Amino acid sequence: MEREEFLQVYRHSLAHILAKAVVEIFGKEQVQYAIGPQIENGMYYDFVLPRAVNADDFKTIEDKMREIIKRRENWTRKEVSRTEALELFKDQKFKTELIEELPEDETLTVYYTGEDFVDLCRGPHVDNSQELMNVAYEIRSVSGAYWRGDEHRDQMQRIYVYAFPDKNQLKEFKKLLKEALERDHKKLGPQLDLFMFDETAPGMPYWLPRGWKLFNALLSFWRGIHEEHGYQEIAGPVISNSKLWKTSGHWGHYKENMFIIPGEKEDESDYYAAKPMNCPNAILVYKRELRSYRELPMRINQVDVIHRKEKSGELNGLFRVQMFRQDDAHILVTEDQIADEIKDIMEIATEIYNTFGLSYVAELSTRPDDYMGDIEVWNKAEAELKDILNTVYGEGNYEINEGDGAFYGPKIDLKMKDALGREWQMGTIQLDFQLPLNFEMKYVAQDGTQKQPVMIHRAIFGSLERFIGILIENFKGAFPFWLSPYQVAVVPIRTEHNEYAKKVVAALKEAGIRVEVDYADKNMNDKIKAFKTMKDPYIVVVGDKEAAENTVSITVRGQKQQLHNVPLEQLVAMCVKMQKEHMQNLIDTAE
Amino acid sequence: MEREEFLQVYRHSLAHILAKAVVEIFGKEQVQYAIGPQIENGMYYDFVLPRAVNADDFKTIEDKMREIIKRRENWTRKEVSRTEALELFKDQKFKTELIEELPEDETLTVYYTGEDFVDLCRGPHVDNSQELMNVAYEIRSVSGAYWRGDEHRDQMQRIYVYAFPDKNQLKEFKKLLKEALERDHKKLGPQLDLFMFDETAPGMPYWLPRGWKLFNALLSFWRGIHEEHGYQEIAGPVISNSKLWKTSGHWGHYKENMFIIPGEKEDESDYYAAKPMNCPNAILVYKRELRSYRELPMRINQVDVIHRKEKSGELNGLFRVQMFRQDDAHILVTEDQIADEIKDIMEIATEIYNTFGLSYVAELSTRPDDYMGDIEVWNKAEAELKDILNTVYGEGNYEINEGDGAFYGPKIDLKMKDALGREWQMGTIQLDFQLPLNFEMKYVAQDGTQKQPVMIHRAIFGSLERFIGILIENFKGAFPFWLSPYQVAVVPIRTEHNEYAKKVVAALKEAGIRVEVDYADKNMNDKIKAFKTMKDPYIVVVGDKEAAENTVSITVRGQKQQLHNVPLEQLVAMCVKMQKEHMQNLIDTAE
Repeated sequence: MEREEFLQVYRHSLAHILAKAVVEIFGKEQVQYAIGPQIENGMYYDFVLPRAVNADDFKTIEDKMREIIKRRENWTRKEVSRTEALELFKDQKFKTELIEELPEDETLTVYYTGEDFVDLCRGPHVDNSQELMNVAYEIRSVSGAYWRGDEHRDQMQRIYVYAFPDKNQLKEFKKLLKEALERDHKKLGPQLDLFMFDETAPGMPYWLPRGWKLFNALLSFWRGIHEEHGYQEIAGPVISNSKLWKTSGHWGHYKENMFIIPGEKEDESDYYAAKPMNCPNAILVYKRELRSYRELPMRINQVDVIHRKEKSGELNGLFRVQMFRQDDAHILVTEDQIADEIKDIMEIATEIYNTFGLSYVAELSTRPDDYMGDIEVWNKAEAELKDILNTVYGEGNYEINEGDGAFYGPKIDLKMKDALGREWQMGTIQLDFQLPLNFEMKYVAQDGTQKQPVMIHRAIFGSLERFIGILIENFKGAFPFWLSPYQVAVVPIRTEHNEYAKKVVAALKEAGIRVEVDYADKNMNDKIKAFKTMKDPYIVVVGDKEAAENTVSITVRGQKQQLHNVPLEQLVAMCVKMQKEHMQNLIDTAE
Repeated sequence: MEREEFLQVYRHSLAHILAKAVVEIFGKEQVQYAIGPQIENGMYYDFVLPRAVNADDFKTIEDKMREIIKRRENWTRKEVSRTEALELFKDQKFKTELIEELPEDETLTVYYTGEDFVDLCRGPHVDNSQELMNVAYEIRSVSGAYWRGDEHRDQMQRIYVYAFPDKNQLKEFKKLLKEALERDHKKLGPQLDLFMFDETAPGMPYWLPRGWKLFNALLSFWRGIHEEHGYQEIAGPVISNSKLWKTSGHWGHYKENMFIIPGEKEDESDYYAAKPMNCPNAILVYKRELRSYRELPMRINQVDVIHRKEKSGELNGLFRVQMFRQDDAHILVTEDQIADEIKDIMEIATEIYNTFGLSYVAELSTRPDDYMGDIEVWNKAEAELKDILNTVYGEGNYEINEGDGAFYGPKIDLKMKDALGREWQMGTIQLDFQLPLNFEMKYVAQDGTQKQPVMIHRAIFGSLERFIGILIENFKGAFPFWLSPYQVAVVPIRTEHNEYAKKVVAALKEAGIRVEVDYADKNMNDKIKAFKTMKDPYIVVVGDKEAAENTVSITVRGQKQQLHNVPLEQLVAMCVKMQKEHMQNLIDTAE
């Protein structure tokens, strides 16, 4: 049995054990049991019970489950008619409701666990409870739920259980879970003064001073690379008239996700909307002049604020927001330039992800049935994309999703793995044969005729907000030197050392290093502790000896040994090197 | 007679001459003349005429005016009763309407110019037309206008006339006017690839690649200074719920200027609005923790996009927009800290304006009758503001607008003069005793009690967009070196010099200089011309000699002589110095 299948069978079987345990504890007449699906990391079961279950009951239920498993009861599968099933579950209103919805002539399967507990189920299940002997489980929580998710129906108690094949795997999982909780960007963000949310702007982050420094360091890194690759950055309006969104197709296809601003007239031509995407801005900038083939590829990048409406239940820290900035670019190319341009984008992506030490994989989505445009252009483009992916990753080292491209062009998605092994959809490279048509974009070709360029939409980070969320969790808030909000913290041992500390601060600032300092008349260790809490990479202490010798003593984040009396010049040179080369850290005192 | 008074009398008298001329040309029965006020640089008069007046008529009218002036007719002032006036103007419907609105017993004054033309007027006027002999005038334009500005009333033709005491002054004025037109940022902006507008986003600028570079250079300068002065930059949501705007008072007092986004419910609590100001963001960031007096002054700066609705007729390039970025800051201080903080802001303002070579004056607006808060706090604050202004400018060297402060606090406005002598309202420093109250802001004072901080709103540029508009006109698009979108343009003489050009480009980029280059195989002079058109400060030409000797030849913008064979190192060092010290230009070849 495959591991996945095994997980499904025993998690599902364990759900029956849970239901049986709850029935035995509260008494058959007192319990209505509804459904108990397996989910990631375990399963849950929904009940209506005579009283609220709480954490104090968890052990009782867990023990009862263990007791049932130890009974080594047989599991019996039985096929029953709809009528038989209704009789079998006549006291269980939710089961009855489920059965009544089935066709009259349907044959159902039920599973007996021992002889006294039966549940409606397709299976498969274990044959005997003893197969569950090694299984490790733990009740995670109990929470409220509505029958069928409908707030007008019965309110139920949903008991969540973690379940793994053995104790070690459960332990491993709980370790990872603890690690993930400790890394939770929603917790670390406000703690490290990075960002916050307010109820008056759900899903629209406030960037706090340190977070905004990090944001701008990231942006500056991104700008540098794109400048090198010939990109031209623009900024556009945040709000535009419906006319623009009608031409772009957003009004027709994306309106429910847009923040709409009605005008004074009822007429839609007087309506405005906050932009959910930047594409039309780039197009209008392209269109301001009749362009020549000599100007192509024209690479327009842009990091304006964009807005997309989300259901409030789906908002999730920086991972799912309503306001964010994409590291967006729109590239206008001739058909002949597609391959080289994609290659260039892959280079940028690799450079960027490598800088963070993050690995990524690519997925190609190809022509769907309802494709638009010339099939030969599609074929050529897809062949070129495959060539590039073969070259970059080696044949077979990337996924192909046949027919999964958008109707307006094929695309490559870039997925990244973080420090916890979690996968994130990040960058996307999307060919577009449609928008240039909608907006009647043209260029004068070498032969003097007017032709239509192809548009490439692309982002490497995706959303800067979300990417920073991932970075916070990946680095647990201890960002690489070059990216840290403050890179060096200066601690004068006593106020008489403030003068020399000022010199150190000035030297670092002059070199473009982000530095903070605490001149207050208080205990040195308190100052160091405060800077450590904020995870500043280098804490530099200066006292008599340092002032006399023009040196500093350095505590490197996460390392035990302190470096004493490093010449100030050397510190500055190191910082500049790390900053410029986007390095994690130059000093390793761990031996 | 004061110059101002003289201008008023003769411009006003000239308006009568214009009306008389038009009446003589078209015939008394054919002309309805309405009102003719004097305005800046001249005056206008509104008429209903038998046909449209156009540029071809201007000379005829001007000549007729000259002819009338030469008649040396006497001007007679006469007091008449309302009834007499109605009889006098019985054929003039607009005059009749004006007279009918006056009280029954009102005595009116009319002026006769010669014996055949009379106008309703308070005066004063010249005694004889010959006083106007030296006056220089010129019809500027004719445009449509509605009687009393009401589009449902009569449509009229408004004839505008420039008028000055003599020919030289008119000439001088027209020179300035031509200069202003040549400097018009609305013309230069798109020409120099700085910004553009699109009809789908009126008053919401698109920043083009060069403009956005300039914008960011300005922003980076601004950030550097504020970082030095202990400011902490944040960024906030662009859209927030009405709840926030209700607390801040914007919903009550500023709603008609806000872009409103209705929610799905009718309820206003589900309404959102794009922010017209940043203040509430800073307040919420302040309020995220209980603050201590040790944290004050807390200086929060912010350059987010803000939106304010304007009537479409009032939009004017970058000068009057609907979307812009304020160089905003909100400072929370104790009452004792107000004076020092204002002094610090004045220092920042002086440093910033000096960098651009722009002079400025300050105006203090003091407590209005409907002030809020403690009068002693007001008195102390105003006395402190005056002290500071006395120290900075010298007593009497700034204006005081008594009673013109906002009800929530006194303020200082900073007004700047540009290269054409035009005055611009720029910065503002505004004390606020109200918002800290609305938002229940607190800090723990040294004695352990909770006190309310005072808030200072301040901006130096005002709007970054508008400031850039002013800079474009002030510098005629030829920005100082440090601010130029591209600072150095590199021109290889022939393609064989591209290799060395790349080295030059790399050396400049490495030093953080914004550099562009044209490697194309085309005539060197065409390349130079193109870069000159874009007003790049330094155009660097490299050929055989330069490559061999590791030098460059430099053409400095606006200077005739070329500097030959300057060592590359020296060019880089100069550029870095100009960049760092925010300099206009280091090389002067003009002898």
